[in-house]
Amino acid sequence: MRISVLGAGGWGTTLAILLHYNGHDVTLWEYKSNYAKILDKTRENKIYLPGIKIPDEIIITHSLKKSCENQHMIVIAIPSQFIRSVLHELNNYDFHDTTFVSVSKGIEKVTLKTVSQIIHDVLKKISPSQVGVLSGPSHAEEVSRKIPTAVVAASKDEFTAKQIQNAFITSYFRVYSSTDILGVEYGGATKNVIAIGAGIIDGAKFGDNTKAAIMTRGIAEISRLGIALGARPETFSGLSGMGDLIVTCMSKHSRNRYVGEQIGAGKKLKDVLKSMQMVAEGVETCKSVRELAIKHKVSTPIVNSVYQILFEERDPIKVTYELMTRDMKAERE
Amino acid sequence: MRISVLGAGGWGTTLAILLHYNGHDVTLWEYKSNYAKILDKTRENKIYLPGIKIPDEIIITHSLKKSCENQHMIVIAIPSQFIRSVLHELNNYDFHDTTFVSVSKGIEKVTLKTVSQIIHDVLKKISPSQVGVLSGPSHAEEVSRKIPTAVVAASKDEFTAKQIQNAFITSYFRVYSSTDILGVEYGGATKNVIAIGAGIIDGAKFGDNTKAAIMTRGIAEISRLGIALGARPETFSGLSGMGDLIVTCMSKHSRNRYVGEQIGAGKKLKDVLKSMQMVAEGVETCKSVRELAIKHKVSTPIVNSVYQILFEERDPIKVTYELMTRDMKAERE
Repeated sequence: MRISVLGAGGWGTTLAILLHYNGHDVTLWEYKSNYAKILDKTRENKIYLPGIKIPDEIIITHSLKKSCENQHMIVIAIPSQFIRSVLHELNNYDFHDTTFVSVSKGIEKVTLKTVSQIIHDVLKKISPSQVGVLSGPSHAEEVSRKIPTAVVAASKDEFTAKQIQNAFITSYFRVYSSTDILGVEYGGATKNVIAIGAGIIDGAKFGDNTKAAIMTRGIAEISRLGIALGARPETFSGLSGMGDLIVTCMSKHSRNRYVGEQIGAGKKLKDVLKSMQMVAEGVETCKSVRELAIKHKVSTPIVNSVYQILFEERDPIKVTYELMTRDMKAERE
Repeated sequence: MRISVLGAGGWGTTLAILLHYNGHDVTLWEYKSNYAKILDKTRENKIYLPGIKIPDEIIITHSLKKSCENQHMIVIAIPSQFIRSVLHELNNYDFHDTTFVSVSKGIEKVTLKTVSQIIHDVLKKISPSQVGVLSGPSHAEEVSRKIPTAVVAASKDEFTAKQIQNAFITSYFRVYSSTDILGVEYGGATKNVIAIGAGIIDGAKFGDNTKAAIMTRGIAEISRLGIALGARPETFSGLSGMGDLIVTCMSKHSRNRYVGEQIGAGKKLKDVLKSMQMVAEGVETCKSVRELAIKHKVSTPIVNSVYQILFEERDPIKVTYELMTRDMKAERE
């Protein structure tokens, strides 16, 4: 297949390389023309994926035309808040035979839409069977070193889910299929907020018990929200929900956990974000998830606590104690 | 209340102290008479909970009569394989007004019974409303240092679950209630087997992606088995299932994870077990869970892999690759 990857961050670059070795003709699009030239020349993504060689056969370009015309599959690996503006530039292309695969995780501010919803919003002619997502516990650094990994490919259309599964699967990258695209997207986006919460627990020097409690109650509340929005409950206990939450909360590679850890240790949000090269999706997603929860009248105490600590500068230790000592109740409330 | 804790390991001792500070009259039973005397004299459990003072008001004894007569509540904190023999000695006591609370996690060999089932098996007069369990992500070392922790109290009888909740709850030890005692018990016992698997991933130097995949697919398979045995699916994504799995797979305190890590690094099971003071419940439970799965025709590829590595000395790296590269399928299979 001809497959184009939009976005040459760590994950986009990793997937471009994986797809190339899977026998596809791959184009990698980078939005900064200058960095596209450097990538093409050095064949290494020094900022986002140092030490990994980008094969010469992968076309690296800054041209959206070159990367989006006549592709069987377009993989979207752009930070979620920029996706709409990039898609707007694609409005006049013919995509009647193209499958879009989002590997980005976030919920757009103001519109509160997931990536697949943004795609349909901008590219009106695209049908649901042309859109899918790939998500799960998959740090780019590990996939690029061929460490065994398992993820989920989801689309409303089962055939599309299986097409994506086939395009990506390798001996070390196991892809399951699902038709609950909404559940996979909400799980992937909202877990970043819980991961910031887990990072706060680390930074404020609580224990493993506290962190496990926050993660478990966290997946319960984002699952409640997802169900209210039309997702299926079991998706949240799968790879794209709980699995991704585990890796994000536990791994040294995770940016969202890192942001939380710094805040938990007493730093200010703006200083932490200023010091980072990469985007921590969970920070913006926290606002969107809180709004969604209010709109759909779903109780999300952990998301609200993270919001208060991030944006209202409340004390992490005090908020955590409040959260852990609310009224007693049954587990399924 | 008068509450007796049977078993002065790390968890039993921690809970005895917690219950004492919650205003109860507490007796702590230790099965070795000599160690009971040392505990009583030194007021410190140097082997299992060093550095924590046992208040003078807690009665420490080796006498089952003294610890089990006239108690409102009896907490069972004994390794699961020894519970039956201890209970047999209690057969002639009057327990018509006593609640039994198991805090042990395991499935008995041969009978394949959970702790609450063993209680009913041995003490025929006890009704289901007199039996409950307390389970969740709760390393004793952290609870004894008052680190915020959340667990579940379960009994078939809602009133009993709430009675246990009330007995144990403190400002730092949050207790939820549930009526799915079977789900809570199966989750607590079987997660130890998955934790050995996660430890193997650590020891064999796979990555966070691999570990998250094994944990997620692991909870899916023990949840399938639990449902086949009559437990409720949602319990497995709660504190006593996923929550406890997370803490056991991630924490440096976990013995089951430690056993797996040593095996993953190439050591032999018997040498690892010989070097440990405490019991790693997951080793024996692995055999029981495998038998239960065969008996109820439930597919448990991760439990089977752990079994092959532990008891058939198969190569951890080879088995992990096999596990990760099975046929593609839908996530809910």
